Amino acid sequence: MNDAVLALNAGSSSIKFALYEIAAGHAAKPLLHGQIEGLGGKPHFTARDPSGAMLSEQRWTHGEAPDHEALLGTLLDWVDHHLGSDRLVGVGHRVVHGGAAHGAPERVTDALLDDLDRLTPLAPLHQPHSLSPIRAIARARPDLAQVACFDTAFHRTMPAVATRLALPRRYESDGVRRYGFHGLSYEYIAGRLATVAPALAEGRVIVAHLGNGASLCAMHGGASQDTTMGFTALDGLVMGTRCGSIDPGALLYLQQSGGLSASQLEDLLYRRSGLLGVSGLDSDMRALLESSEPAAAEAVALFIYRFVQLAGGLVATLGGLDGLVFTAGIGEHAPAIRAAACAKLDWLGIALDQRLNHAGNGRISAAGSRVAVWVIPTDEEAMIAQHTIAMLQSRH
Amino acid sequence: MNDAVLALNAGSSSIKFALYEIAAGHAAKPLLHGQIEGLGGKPHFTARDPSGAMLSEQRWTHGEAPDHEALLGTLLDWVDHHLGSDRLVGVGHRVVHGGAAHGAPERVTDALLDDLDRLTPLAPLHQPHSLSPIRAIARARPDLAQVACFDTAFHRTMPAVATRLALPRRYESDGVRRYGFHGLSYEYIAGRLATVAPALAEGRVIVAHLGNGASLCAMHGGASQDTTMGFTALDGLVMGTRCGSIDPGALLYLQQSGGLSASQLEDLLYRRSGLLGVSGLDSDMRALLESSEPAAAEAVALFIYRFVQLAGGLVATLGGLDGLVFTAGIGEHAPAIRAAACAKLDWLGIALDQRLNHAGNGRISAAGSRVAVWVIPTDEEAMIAQHTIAMLQSRH
Repeated sequence: MNDAVLALNAGSSSIKFALYEIAAGHAAKPLLHGQIEGLGGKPHFTARDPSGAMLSEQRWTHGEAPDHEALLGTLLDWVDHHLGSDRLVGVGHRVVHGGAAHGAPERVTDALLDDLDRLTPLAPLHQPHSLSPIRAIARARPDLAQVACFDTAFHRTMPAVATRLALPRRYESDGVRRYGFHGLSYEYIAGRLATVAPALAEGRVIVAHLGNGASLCAMHGGASQDTTMGFTALDGLVMGTRCGSIDPGALLYLQQSGGLSASQLEDLLYRRSGLLGVSGLDSDMRALLESSEPAAAEAVALFIYRFVQLAGGLVATLGGLDGLVFTAGIGEHAPAIRAAACAKLDWLGIALDQRLNHAGNGRISAAGSRVAVWVIPTDEEAMIAQHTIAMLQSRH
Repeated sequence: MNDAVLALNAGSSSIKFALYEIAAGHAAKPLLHGQIEGLGGKPHFTARDPSGAMLSEQRWTHGEAPDHEALLGTLLDWVDHHLGSDRLVGVGHRVVHGGAAHGAPERVTDALLDDLDRLTPLAPLHQPHSLSPIRAIARARPDLAQVACFDTAFHRTMPAVATRLALPRRYESDGVRRYGFHGLSYEYIAGRLATVAPALAEGRVIVAHLGNGASLCAMHGGASQDTTMGFTALDGLVMGTRCGSIDPGALLYLQQSGGLSASQLEDLLYRRSGLLGVSGLDSDMRALLESSEPAAAEAVALFIYRFVQLAGGLVATLGGLDGLVFTAGIGEHAPAIRAAACAKLDWLGIALDQRLNHAGNGRISAAGSRVAVWVIPTDEEAMIAQHTIAMLQSRH
């Protein structure tokens, strides 16, 4: 009989999950992974084995769909059934915001949940989706140990100057400061880099987590020095539907002259801007790269332009660059984006090997490139599982 | 009998002016310069000759102070009297915003003023101060030719991608795009650089206009490629009382959780943030550099940190750097700031000559520096006068 842990990564419309056996040396051996998409609409459950083969699939129609909590119950029952004589001993969660006080994974307690609830105003669109599965599982399965893994925690090593906004200083003590996000992804990449390129991992590296949400992280010796998302997940790069960095005066104008309320502005900046807004077509980079519309090309060009400018800013923060790592959906699967971004960074001594770039896994820079460029697939669930196992073991 | 032009640079609380004789070859020969400070309070008029010696000074007490229009009349009368048999033939003005349509200086007409009025929502705090002196002089002295010189015009060479915000594209046709400011200063510096270092002026140069308002401009061959101020003068560097770049999510939070109205937020971001907000002490860099308070040092450190990061972004946009030019109050007079910023940019091959940096005029980089660093005093009024003379001559 073996013990297993479940890693949950819950968003507004989907839950990703992955199941791991606790193997020798506290290693996390992947058993299966999957997701429930279409939460709130027509949920679609899929589970696959490590090779990608479908293990199970279930669909609900709009009327009969169970609520989030019932779907989680269904998932846990399915996991138990699938494990057979093996035993689920813990669930680890990605929690978007740990605030200034939570810089490492923690066992879930009522006191922790109350504390994390108080951070909801800092991430109103994301924090509730992190916390509700934890509460649902605590009610349904009080026997299960739960661990909260914070997406902000990896950035606790940022120097104070990088966390500061140029506002009156009393706001800083109220928590209005830069935190950074995508921390579980960056932590996973830092760990992988230390394995596949240990000398490079000690140097100055920018990791580009380019998904529907996107950010850059400047690391030195594997520790976060700065990142392009700040107080919220709205800042920095152009994203699928989010604006990224924008003149604060434009927000004042849209309210004062455009008559938008704060909540209308929030909807505009989070859901109708970015690649979708500029192209007027789609939020998905794949669709834009395939489109022949000039507006699609303009959206892609703006994405690249701002990538290059923000990367340049982080190079200056690091005082030079040894490596660049691409990860997440766009980072792993869009060689055209990697090629365009690296071409604009050739002044740093970056040169791609076009064949390796099209293969898109592992090192993709040319032999003579002064900066090593890598593609490393991210795995936030594996990071959650590692933290969860470590936390469970540390109990003994 | 010679002709003369007056250059006016009107802000919210002061008017700077300079008088030039139209010399051979349409050159602007400086006759005097001065300012009226304390507008709306206790105005203080000073005029000095080109050597800096005081020519005239006048103070008004709070109760007896004439309004802006009457003060301008006083100034024009004083100029006429001072000119004696010479003749004032034109007045040039710095106008903050020319919008997308006005990319070069223009003769003032009623139609132009109406057009510029319509841009007021794009710069509500600044545009009215630009236009009211023009209207006042048109009423008092309809004989005088007036020329509007736009602070946005120098940036008309920015590629479209640098002007774009990642908002739904319909906003762009409404004028919500990046314009850039400090254009008269940048144009003056580009002209001076072409004289004092012509080879460098052809290359990739960042000009740092560091005053109470502050921005960076990336130039290639003397043409603006990008700049850190965008839609408004609020974006980019940390300024005396302005926040500069800030996570848009922080603005939403301050409204939704902090209960600030849009106008309270505007006051916070324009007047109570920046160096003043972070230090809690002063908006003046000189005062902060002299202070022994840790909060003063933190504000200065944040100014430098963001300078380096934004400069790094522009270096990436330019694809490398040949020169860096410091100008305006802080840029010309704070060797400690120049030294700290350049030390953090040493990875670009920047090395200052500490003796030249303390002297602070002309080239300040060491002989072996791969990037040439200069201090060049700016002179927006001289630029206004040159444009005004050129415009008056083109009439003939």
